[in-house]
Amino acid sequence: MNFFTLEAKSGNARAGRIVTSHGVIETPIFMPVGTRGTVKALEQEDLEALAAQIILGNTYHLYLKPGHELIERLGGLHKFMSWDRPILTDSGGYQVFSLSDINKLTEEGVTFQSHIDGSKHLITPEKSMQIQRALGSDIVMAFDECPKLPASKETLHKSMKLTERWAKRCKSVELKSHQHLFGIIQGGLFEDLRTESMQGLIELGFDGYALGGLSVGEKNEEMVAFCASFVPTMPENKPRYLMGVGKPLDVMNGIKAGLDMFDCVLPTRNARNGQFLTHHGPLNIKKARFLEDSGAPDPECKCRVCQRYSRAYIRHLFNVGEYLAGQLITFHNIYFYLNMVKEAREAIFQDGFDDYYTKFYNNYTSNRWE
Amino acid sequence: MNFFTLEAKSGNARAGRIVTSHGVIETPIFMPVGTRGTVKALEQEDLEALAAQIILGNTYHLYLKPGHELIERLGGLHKFMSWDRPILTDSGGYQVFSLSDINKLTEEGVTFQSHIDGSKHLITPEKSMQIQRALGSDIVMAFDECPKLPASKETLHKSMKLTERWAKRCKSVELKSHQHLFGIIQGGLFEDLRTESMQGLIELGFDGYALGGLSVGEKNEEMVAFCASFVPTMPENKPRYLMGVGKPLDVMNGIKAGLDMFDCVLPTRNARNGQFLTHHGPLNIKKARFLEDSGAPDPECKCRVCQRYSRAYIRHLFNVGEYLAGQLITFHNIYFYLNMVKEAREAIFQDGFDDYYTKFYNNYTSNRWE
Repeated sequence: MNFFTLEAKSGNARAGRIVTSHGVIETPIFMPVGTRGTVKALEQEDLEALAAQIILGNTYHLYLKPGHELIERLGGLHKFMSWDRPILTDSGGYQVFSLSDINKLTEEGVTFQSHIDGSKHLITPEKSMQIQRALGSDIVMAFDECPKLPASKETLHKSMKLTERWAKRCKSVELKSHQHLFGIIQGGLFEDLRTESMQGLIELGFDGYALGGLSVGEKNEEMVAFCASFVPTMPENKPRYLMGVGKPLDVMNGIKAGLDMFDCVLPTRNARNGQFLTHHGPLNIKKARFLEDSGAPDPECKCRVCQRYSRAYIRHLFNVGEYLAGQLITFHNIYFYLNMVKEAREAIFQDGFDDYYTKFYNNYTSNRWE
Repeated sequence: MNFFTLEAKSGNARAGRIVTSHGVIETPIFMPVGTRGTVKALEQEDLEALAAQIILGNTYHLYLKPGHELIERLGGLHKFMSWDRPILTDSGGYQVFSLSDINKLTEEGVTFQSHIDGSKHLITPEKSMQIQRALGSDIVMAFDECPKLPASKETLHKSMKLTERWAKRCKSVELKSHQHLFGIIQGGLFEDLRTESMQGLIELGFDGYALGGLSVGEKNEEMVAFCASFVPTMPENKPRYLMGVGKPLDVMNGIKAGLDMFDCVLPTRNARNGQFLTHHGPLNIKKARFLEDSGAPDPECKCRVCQRYSRAYIRHLFNVGEYLAGQLITFHNIYFYLNMVKEAREAIFQDGFDDYYTKFYNNYTSNRWE
């Protein structure tokens, strides 16, 4: 069985399937983020009810707490959290660079202080592989350096070459037999750098290729234009993953460009801040206009939350700080993302992605709740 | 259809059924507390999966936020929170006396300042009835004064007579046709005061009788002894409700004494503090001994949490402050209470309550997790 099969195309948009030992992932797919072994505010039963096909775990967080060795002794991350569908773990690179105090970046790796207790740690490419091997995720990400944008071409080139050397070291570490390793393409918004980065990785040979270092400070339209131009040059026969991006329209633009996999904390994090993502744009439940609004959060949504609860009720829950507000909005937002990629996939099979995109875009930007 | 039917007895323990327009309640029953229109950390679907037959709403909290008038305009509490099974609302009395700053207690009622925003409010017996009528609960509690124990007999007598006069005023307010009003017996641990209080209420005639002012400072064995002696003197043909009590053994002792209805925040509040209530006593998931414990939280429990998740996983969730810890422990604890009263009910039908009690008591006090 091939790891990845391209099933259909509509323009540059692709439908495919990824086969792992924990199950099949139908692409394009959104991966809910389960940073510390839980998608915040959802039970695993909820994720199953939502038909989530794959979730993401954060290597950096799980390494610090409860520790990858403990998780391995307890049978790996799937067993630890009782989730038997696929899991992707990131490399920890992004979090090391964004959450911790960096002490030293060398050829060897990164020395940093934990954002939790200040303890010192050295993460190398080999260490990242050991941690992810212990976690037992189905898809493992190579350890990369993540520079913030804007950055000079020289800086980005240097960083990209380091990421390439690190990728080679990652590749040399033996993973568990069920694990698949993805390489991460860096190079900012410079297509020549990205191409050089990608060629280096392709020579090493990975099971999938990710775009890292996007949505890290550049303008949104720059990212969109870059993806539209660059993604079609990526290998056809491997999954293409846009890391940590993004808003609903970012995901739709990514699919349009030919990307297959997406993750972002936005639907879960914004849920806990009272934001519903709806067919007509973001809806902030805190607004006074929803005080006595007995309508469904998103009238066009078929999720169990929109079928059952009113805006007025959820606004009340949010205002008095009840758990249930976060639970309900998170459930809806994940449903919204998974439904969006599922509909996109169906449209691709019908070779009607552009129409779907246009309809989605026009609805989403109608700003009905502003 | 009678509101209450006594179905079986085993010693003083009773099995019965209460019929409301929102459904039947099989007693003895535990009522999960949904203070602000939600049982904290549970979705209404969870409560349905738990087969919760009735929940409790707090008049004081709902009056302050979002306001009973708003809830009434939105169709009442059942519709507002999408819960179509029975609801009992308390009178607000206990919360007014325990949570707010009392400004003045008079024959008329209580003037207090909100614990939320300091605003001033007067709650009278009539006002409590108006609020509960607006909420539309199935069982409405009379407005009572709740003195803390220990208190002098004179204080308790004075308070009890005030509660009786207030009960009369409550009785004179017309409720909605589906609503049933319960009277609250006060009098501390003095049986003669309690009897006098009860007689006064019986003359007025209520659909059920509650014991208020217990577990408010007296020793546990005093409460148990009082209930064992007093409860059998309460009317046989009406539901008997022990308000705000208590721990699992308190509920079991209450059933043994002949009480039918119980509520307490303990299973939900303690859940959010990491405490599982198990067949072998409370289990504090924070303890280091559970760090690598892959066992079920309560090995004798059949709830979906104990069937799926390990102590080590839930300990991790609790330690890193994840929502899911509170969600899972709350689900289990409510299952534990509902299972306990269900098994007690079955034992009563078999006339084997004493054996069930002894077995439960011995297990629960075995302190296996200390």
